[in-house]
Amino acid sequence: MSFFKVSYQSKKSKARLGTITTNHGKVATPAYIAVGTKATVKGLSPKELKDLGVKIFFVNTYHVFLQPGDSLIKKLGGLHAFCGWKGPLITDSGGFQVFSLGKEKYTSKDNSAQSFREGGKLTKISNQGVLFRSYWDGKEHFFSPEKSISIQHNLGADLIVAFDDCTPYPVTRAKAEISLARTHRWAQELLLAHQRLSRRARYPQYLYGVVQGSYFKDLREKSAEFISSLPFDGIAIGGVSVGEPKKKMRQAVSWVMPYLPDDKPRHLLGVGEPDDIFDFVEMGIDTMDCVLPTRFGRMGKAIVKGKGWFIDLLKAKYQKDASPIDPECGCEACQNFSKAYLHHLFKTHELLGYRLATLHNMYYIMDLMAKIREAIRNEGLKELRKEYGF
Amino acid sequence: MSFFKVSYQSKKSKARLGTITTNHGKVATPAYIAVGTKATVKGLSPKELKDLGVKIFFVNTYHVFLQPGDSLIKKLGGLHAFCGWKGPLITDSGGFQVFSLGKEKYTSKDNSAQSFREGGKLTKISNQGVLFRSYWDGKEHFFSPEKSISIQHNLGADLIVAFDDCTPYPVTRAKAEISLARTHRWAQELLLAHQRLSRRARYPQYLYGVVQGSYFKDLREKSAEFISSLPFDGIAIGGVSVGEPKKKMRQAVSWVMPYLPDDKPRHLLGVGEPDDIFDFVEMGIDTMDCVLPTRFGRMGKAIVKGKGWFIDLLKAKYQKDASPIDPECGCEACQNFSKAYLHHLFKTHELLGYRLATLHNMYYIMDLMAKIREAIRNEGLKELRKEYGF
Repeated sequence: MSFFKVSYQSKKSKARLGTITTNHGKVATPAYIAVGTKATVKGLSPKELKDLGVKIFFVNTYHVFLQPGDSLIKKLGGLHAFCGWKGPLITDSGGFQVFSLGKEKYTSKDNSAQSFREGGKLTKISNQGVLFRSYWDGKEHFFSPEKSISIQHNLGADLIVAFDDCTPYPVTRAKAEISLARTHRWAQELLLAHQRLSRRARYPQYLYGVVQGSYFKDLREKSAEFISSLPFDGIAIGGVSVGEPKKKMRQAVSWVMPYLPDDKPRHLLGVGEPDDIFDFVEMGIDTMDCVLPTRFGRMGKAIVKGKGWFIDLLKAKYQKDASPIDPECGCEACQNFSKAYLHHLFKTHELLGYRLATLHNMYYIMDLMAKIREAIRNEGLKELRKEYGF
Repeated sequence: MSFFKVSYQSKKSKARLGTITTNHGKVATPAYIAVGTKATVKGLSPKELKDLGVKIFFVNTYHVFLQPGDSLIKKLGGLHAFCGWKGPLITDSGGFQVFSLGKEKYTSKDNSAQSFREGGKLTKISNQGVLFRSYWDGKEHFFSPEKSISIQHNLGADLIVAFDDCTPYPVTRAKAEISLARTHRWAQELLLAHQRLSRRARYPQYLYGVVQGSYFKDLREKSAEFISSLPFDGIAIGGVSVGEPKKKMRQAVSWVMPYLPDDKPRHLLGVGEPDDIFDFVEMGIDTMDCVLPTRFGRMGKAIVKGKGWFIDLLKAKYQKDASPIDPECGCEACQNFSKAYLHHLFKTHELLGYRLATLHNMYYIMDLMAKIREAIRNEGLKELRKEYGF
C-alpha cells in the first residue's frame, strides 16, 4: 500500500480526493486535522472523536516534550498508547512553538549577529538550532533538526514534520533569506537523521518537509522547488497564519502550489476557518489543521452556516432561546440542548458547556469535510460553497 | 402505581430494597443520587449519566433560582427539558445553601433578637423566612417556606424537599429548640402551599419533609415523630454532614430511624462517602446524595476499594504508572487510560482529566450501589462490606 494515493482530480478546480494510509488507519482527503496540543483534543475523549468522524489529530511536540516528556511517552508505548487513540496521529517539529512562544519576549533590536535573531530572552537561534527557555518550568533546552526528529521518533506519530525556521510576520527580505537558507539546510540534515532512526522503527513514520519563504514570491517558489526535490513523504506549507491578512495567505499558498509534486500529500499548517477550508481545498490542499473548533468551543463560540460563521453563546439574546444552535445539525449538543441551556452553562463556567460547544464545532467541521469530499466527487464544490455562504 | 414500594426487608439488618416511581421513571433503592448543582452534573453529559446507571440527580434550588431563574426554567418547559434529562430529578429547598453560604459571613455575636440569628451580613432569619444576599450578583432575596415550594413547582422536579431551618454545628440547646420549632412550623405552612400548587401540576411532585434537631436526642426524636405525622410523601434527614464527627452523624440518624414510617422513602441529605453508604444502608436509608464523585473527580481523586478509598492522581508516584486506576474496573477511564496519562491531564489542567476521573468515580459508586442492592437481596451485605474493606 502506498502512503498517499490521489483517487480523483477535479476538473473544475485543483481540488482532489485522496487517501493517506498509515499503520494506524486511513485518512480520506481533503481532511481536517483536529488539534490535541498536549496529547488530548481539549474537551473531547478519543471515543467521542471517533464517533465525530475525526480520523487523525495533531500533537504538539514542543508541549509534550516539556510535559510529560518524549522519553516517558516512549517508555509507555508511544503517543497512541499514552493517549488511548488507536487512529493515525501527526506531530509537528516544535519549531513553530519555539519561535512563537519566544517571540513575545524579544526585547533587543540588535540584528548584528547573523546567528542570533532579535536577542530574545526565551529564544536564541543559530545554524545549529534553537536555544529556548521552557514556558513550563523555565529550564533551558536546545532543539536542533536532529533533536526534533529524534523526539518525534520517540513519540511515534504516523506523520511527522521537519524542523524549520519559522519567520515572524512581517519580516525583512534579508532576514527571510537567511531564515530560508537555514530551513533548507536543516531539511537536509533532518532527512539523514530520519533515515537513520527509521531503520529501528516498528512502523513507518512519514516525514513532511516544510516550505517557507515568508511573503516573497521568489523565495516561496525557490523553497517549494527545493523541498519538493528532497525525499520527503509529504509537503507542508509553513509560515502562514502568523498574523498576515487572509488575502496574503492565499497568495503565498498560490505561489507554492504549482511546484508541489502531485503524488505527495500537501498539508497547510495551522489554518482552517470555514472560508479557508473552501479556498485551500480548491487550491489542491489535502489536509489542514486548526485549533478553531476546540478553542472556539471553549470560548462559547458555535460555528454555524453563513458568512458570519459563528455565534457567541454568551450573548444576552440567547438567554431565553429555546432553540438549539442549529436545528438541522445532528450533533449531541443540537439534538438535546437549547441555546438557553448552553448560555447558562457558559455563564456558570460549567464543564459540560465547553464540551458541548466543542463537540458541536467538531461535528460541524467533520460534516463539512465529508460534504466537501462528496462535492469534489460530484463536481459540485461551487454549489456547496454557495450553500455555506462563501 | 404507588410512589414508593418496599420489595424486600433484610433479615440481618434494617437494609431494604424498594422502588421509587415517578412520572419520569423509576429508581431502585437503595440509590445514590448524583449532584447536579446548577442543572448539570459537573463534567458529565446526560447521556453519560444514563450509561453509568445514574437514575436521578439533585439540582440545587438556591443556585438555579439565582441563575438562570426558576421562571425562565418554567418558561423553557421545566428542569427536565432545560437540562436535557428525561429521568427523575430532585430539587432541595434552598435552605441549606441559604444558611451555609451565609454562615461564613457571620460577624456579630449578638444573640439578643430571636428573630435574627448571628446578625449575619448575608443571611437574616425570622419566623417568616430568610432574607439573604445572592452570592451570584449581590441582590437581596427572601425565601419563605411557600416561596421555596413555589420555586420548586416552577422547576418541576419529581421529588422536592421542605424548606427547613438548618442549624450549624455545634449549636446551643436553646438555639436548636428555636430552630426546630421554626422547621416544624414551616413544614405545616409549606404542605398547604404544596397542596394548593399541586392542583395545577401536570404530573405529581413528591414532597419530602425534613427531620432536624441537631445533636440532641430528644429533639431528633420529637422531630422524627412530628415530621412523620404530617402528610409528606417521603422523609429526609437534614442537619447532618455539617462539620460534625462521623460517629455523631451515625448517632443522630440512629435516633431518628425508629420513628420513620416503613412505607415512606428515607433520604439522607448530603451524605455519601463509601463507608457512609454501607453504614446508612444498613440503618434503613433508601437514598442519599453527595458531591463526592464529582468533586473528587475534579480534584484528581479517584475512588478505589479499601479503607483509604481514594488515590490522588496528581501524586508524583503516578507519573510513570502505566496501569489504570483499577484494572478490574469497567469504566471508560480504566478501560482506556493509564494513571500516567491521567496524571498528565491533571498536571496540564486538561478538561478530559476532570471528566475521566469523575466518570470513574461515578461508575464506582453506581457499581457499588448495584452490588449493595444485590447483596441485600442475597443477605450478603456483610460479606460485601468486607470485600470493600469497611
